[in-house]
Amino acid sequence: MDTARELHQRSNIFEPDMIEACRPDLERWATNIRPGTVHNAGPTISRLADLPQARQAESVRQAIDRIQDDVRAFQAGHKLDLVVVVNVASTEPPFPIDETHGSMENLLPALEKRQALLPASSLYAWAALDLGWPYINFTPSLGASFPAALELAQERQTVTGGKDGKTGETLLKAVLAPMFANRNLRILSWVGHNIFGNRDGLVLDDPKNKESKIRTKDQVISQIVGYKPQTHVSIEYIESLDDWKTAWDHIHFRGFLGVKMALQFTWQGCDSILAAPLVLDLARLALLSKRRGETGILKHLACFFKSPMGVEENDFFKQWAMLEDYVLSTTV
Amino acid sequence: MDTARELHQRSNIFEPDMIEACRPDLERWATNIRPGTVHNAGPTISRLADLPQARQAESVRQAIDRIQDDVRAFQAGHKLDLVVVVNVASTEPPFPIDETHGSMENLLPALEKRQALLPASSLYAWAALDLGWPYINFTPSLGASFPAALELAQERQTVTGGKDGKTGETLLKAVLAPMFANRNLRILSWVGHNIFGNRDGLVLDDPKNKESKIRTKDQVISQIVGYKPQTHVSIEYIESLDDWKTAWDHIHFRGFLGVKMALQFTWQGCDSILAAPLVLDLARLALLSKRRGETGILKHLACFFKSPMGVEENDFFKQWAMLEDYVLSTTV
Amino acid sequence: MDTARELHQRSNIFEPDMIEACRPDLERWATNIRPGTVHNAGPTISRLADLPQARQAESVRQAIDRIQDDVRAFQAGHKLDLVVVVNVASTEPPFPIDETHGSMENLLPALEKRQALLPASSLYAWAALDLGWPYINFTPSLGASFPAALELAQERQTVTGGKDGKTGETLLKAVLAPMFANRNLRILSWVGHNIFGNRDGLVLDDPKNKESKIRTKDQVISQIVGYKPQTHVSIEYIESLDDWKTAWDHIHFRGFLGVKMALQFTWQGCDSILAAPLVLDLARLALLSKRRGETGILKHLACFFKSPMGVEENDFFKQWAMLEDYVLSTTV
Amino acid sequence: MDTARELHQRSNIFEPDMIEACRPDLERWATNIRPGTVHNAGPTISRLADLPQARQAESVRQAIDRIQDDVRAFQAGHKLDLVVVVNVASTEPPFPIDETHGSMENLLPALEKRQALLPASSLYAWAALDLGWPYINFTPSLGASFPAALELAQERQTVTGGKDGKTGETLLKAVLAPMFANRNLRILSWVGHNIFGNRDGLVLDDPKNKESKIRTKDQVISQIVGYKPQTHVSIEYIESLDDWKTAWDHIHFRGFLGVKMALQFTWQGCDSILAAPLVLDLARLALLSKRRGETGILKHLACFFKSPMGVEENDFFKQWAMLEDYVLSTTV
Repeated sequence: MDTARELHQRSNIFEPDMIEACRPDLERWATNIRPGTVHNAGPTISRLADLPQARQAESVRQAIDRIQDDVRAFQAGHKLDLVVVVNVASTEPPFPIDETHGSMENLLPALEKRQALLPASSLYAWAALDLGWPYINFTPSLGASFPAALELAQERQTVTGGKDGKTGETLLKAVLAPMFANRNLRILSWVGHNIFGNRDGLVLDDPKNKESKIRTKDQVISQIVGYKPQTHVSIEYIESLDDWKTAWDHIHFRGFLGVKMALQFTWQGCDSILAAPLVLDLARLALLSKRRGETGILKHLACFFKSPMGVEENDFFKQWAMLEDYVLSTTV
Repeated sequence: MDTARELHQRSNIFEPDMIEACRPDLERWATNIRPGTVHNAGPTISRLADLPQARQAESVRQAIDRIQDDVRAFQAGHKLDLVVVVNVASTEPPFPIDETHGSMENLLPALEKRQALLPASSLYAWAALDLGWPYINFTPSLGASFPAALELAQERQTVTGGKDGKTGETLLKAVLAPMFANRNLRILSWVGHNIFGNRDGLVLDDPKNKESKIRTKDQVISQIVGYKPQTHVSIEYIESLDDWKTAWDHIHFRGFLGVKMALQFTWQGCDSILAAPLVLDLARLALLSKRRGETGILKHLACFFKSPMGVEENDFFKQWAMLEDYVLSTTV
Repeated sequence: MDTARELHQRSNIFEPDMIEACRPDLERWATNIRPGTVHNAGPTISRLADLPQARQAESVRQAIDRIQDDVRAFQAGHKLDLVVVVNVASTEPPFPIDETHGSMENLLPALEKRQALLPASSLYAWAALDLGWPYINFTPSLGASFPAALELAQERQTVTGGKDGKTGETLLKAVLAPMFANRNLRILSWVGHNIFGNRDGLVLDDPKNKESKIRTKDQVISQIVGYKPQTHVSIEYIESLDDWKTAWDHIHFRGFLGVKMALQFTWQGCDSILAAPLVLDLARLALLSKRRGETGILKHLACFFKSPMGVEENDFFKQWAMLEDYVLSTTV
Repeated sequence: MDTARELHQRSNIFEPDMIEACRPDLERWATNIRPGTVHNAGPTISRLADLPQARQAESVRQAIDRIQDDVRAFQAGHKLDLVVVVNVASTEPPFPIDETHGSMENLLPALEKRQALLPASSLYAWAALDLGWPYINFTPSLGASFPAALELAQERQTVTGGKDGKTGETLLKAVLAPMFANRNLRILSWVGHNIFGNRDGLVLDDPKNKESKIRTKDQVISQIVGYKPQTHVSIEYIESLDDWKTAWDHIHFRGFLGVKMALQFTWQGCDSILAAPLVLDLARLALLSKRRGETGILKHLACFFKSPMGVEENDFFKQWAMLEDYVLSTTV
């Protein structure tokens, strides 16, 4: 493990004091870290991950089996009665699905043969759901968002949720767009420019990986307001910013008598710090659902995600009401 | 009436073409314009209004009587079955109330004697409610927000609503503060700096008038989040901006592990253009309530106001839900 | 000619009153407007220009001859003793030059044969210089910036200047970068994001045309500070903005003891309004030089350009001093 | 001395590692720290300084004598051949001067009698200059900027410079205003809003102390452009920002054909980090002048100050040229 000082310098966030205070816990849990898989995750992730040769050569089926072995070892080692799998890996390029992904019946035989069948995020999803554990996708990658995976979740009586944690700029879109709609201020254009310098930024600097992210960031507004204003989202890796995301958004809108007005905002947030508590809450909520015997998509988690599975609702406060309703109805 | 060109230059908004197109309507309605009253509205408003000497000398009771004559003449002239009075006059300084304002029984005798009893906004309110017409206060002035006026509204079977139209910076506060609350991001400080150059700006350049405005702008956040972050609101008259309000807000907040982050926004809106459609909707909604035989405070109008009468709710989306519930329940 | 109203709506700048007041002058000069040439100006410009078929089919030599005929007719029609040609056409894609462009001896025979020899901006340059008139390049296109054109200017005893008018974001770079240098604040990264909706924006939406622009915008900083911070420039066509350019720049810098700090700015300017007076001054200054019998590159015009010809200096105030020195030395 | 951790938390700047690394040096120099004087520095500074009773009771003459004793002890203790005194204390309220301050002849007898004669900053100035040492005023306080002090500097053959270090927002004014002037863009209004949370902010929260600061910040623009645009400067203490100054400036300007445009900037800098290297350079430059036998005001230091003594020039780049000329002419 790096020294506290190195970690501090690399993140520009965590104080050495804090890292030292957490060191015993961090070291205890670090024993669970295992090399993963980067199947079909694109050349940029493969290059940065730099996996051992053996891992790179294994088949899709072998990858799933090894992930399951790792999860079982983790559960046994810590004597846990429940496990939840959360995908916080780097964003993969968009992955096309076809009828093979349409059902377990089609997919299972293909799993034994085709290597370009599923990206890494979906291998983890498959491994988790197949063991009956919840799988949460905090990224825009494919994960469990294809019919065969949802069928597997039903079959194994477990739950899944996603996609793409809503931590900063898109959170603001989901909050501000309803205001424009309710005030009948027509959005003419919404431009968002994101710069940041962490590992995530390095991966998103590859246009193919960025494509996945822009898709989830860009759809929110038109789904809320019911028409398609011109939108533009850019994401650039700027090394000096470390883990500090800066987003500038320019919203041009038209009011009464056709008058054009503008709102600009600058968001200066630390992505890992914004994401971490959401991941904790998602894990707790997924385990609650699992305990209660629910199955399938956790639609009430929409307020956590840029591209919520199973719901079309992107208005943050309506999403929040869905979560409140769920939590109030389940806490007896 | 000024030429279209002069109006255009003074506002920096209305195109000469548009003014010309509306000229016949504007001139027809302009015949209804009457000199008002500036009783206890503070020296800055008195100076800018420059009323005829006779008007300045009249008593509080005379002012109410004349306003009522004007309203009756307006109604008769246009053969209207219903009238609504909306206060869009300049912001008065805060006006202290005491037990005299606590009931009609106390206030009515005082109306005949004390000249410093009520500010102009409240004289209009009294005149309107006494005639049984709705009174809407689009400003932070006192208006109908004292017990005797509310008693009068009940007595005369009419309705009232206010205070202070929520058009720009405070609208954003009412929209963004709930996001911080729901994401458990603690607001450390919220600084808002407003600059603009219209007549309203000239009045708010007087610290006493500004005081009323800052009170309604500044309370919203703590009522939403449930604690008191440091807040600062400034309002400055900058002549070159004409009717274009520019607001810069800096929100400093703390996230997971105590990390401090920031959101800044710049709002460039035209106050009159933002206010006008709200005034139209408020008039329609007040008339609907009047027709339906409702009485007292129109609490469901909270989403229109910075300091909603009769409700503590400042979360814009909860206020919006109140309006939706009302409208859906009344439209049979 | 369009109506004043259409022009106003399309630009969101020029008031109908102003257009009407200028109409007689505009109409008188409009008789000089001639179809141009779009040789090698890229597919986007060709599509937008929509020239008559005959013009599209002419050879490079024919294009130069016709431009010269048009210039002579203009001079004769208005009885002018001097003419200056200024390129304010849309930005062409980068155009590669080789040894053919290295001297008049090489270029002249090729002019009769090769059609892909020079882009439109250079055909105008050649036509103007060959007639002995000054040629000013207000765009990043090739224009007169190749050895054979400079040789022609010497030969014909005339002058040339460019390239790419410095109107907004890059002007600020040329002003702010020296401040960082003089205060020993090390620039870590400089991100500039430009959005606008005029015809120029439509052309720059083509990545090939944009490439030329980004080159001139992006080099300024490192030439001033003497090292290469990470830079990023993006330019996006956002239709609703009309002729209003909005640029957001984020400058990240390191001060004493390594502390990172930031400057952000938003520039909201109207490109045509910023460019027009510069074009007028450039024409006057070019004619002054022509009258004084100067020849070759007008280096003292550097403060007008993003990529000044013949000088490496990008510090705006040093460029300004060059202009002052020149003007003071010539005004006897 | 506080622990490294406390210092880090209070400043939000200095890493504990860095403080530990500097601890031996800091502790060695800390032995030179002496209680100062707060004569006529206003109630806010007196309250925050919380000096021992004896110090508060001493006369102006006693204060000067004690400061001189401290300076001599410092010089002797470190065996220094030269000393420079730099005022980096909190900003005092404006201090009125009269004919008593007009000459040494008038001032010297008053020094023995009047207690409200000079503020603390001037007592330090007097003490330093009287010993023949350079005195640099990094604040807007009175310091040595009155005729009798300048006479003393001449008499004792020493030098002085000031006032008010130009570290952030005003530096940008001095850099940007010349650009507007050179491009003939007329500044209509310049609004600057400063927020920060350090000790300096606490002092400037007192309107009387703030008054001094606003005077030096507000004059720069009109002196550069030669006319008086509307200006507004506000300074607010926002505790959560610690030593991080955030300034938002809105510059409204008019271009060709009267079109209004805007530039906004946000400066996020750490005042102490920006000031420290300037203080070091000022000390070096003052000592250089002293060594060279110069006397009186160091006009060539103008680029360091918001309100430069002895020069009317506020254009940063012209000020910089003055410094360059001086340095090049003296380094033989």
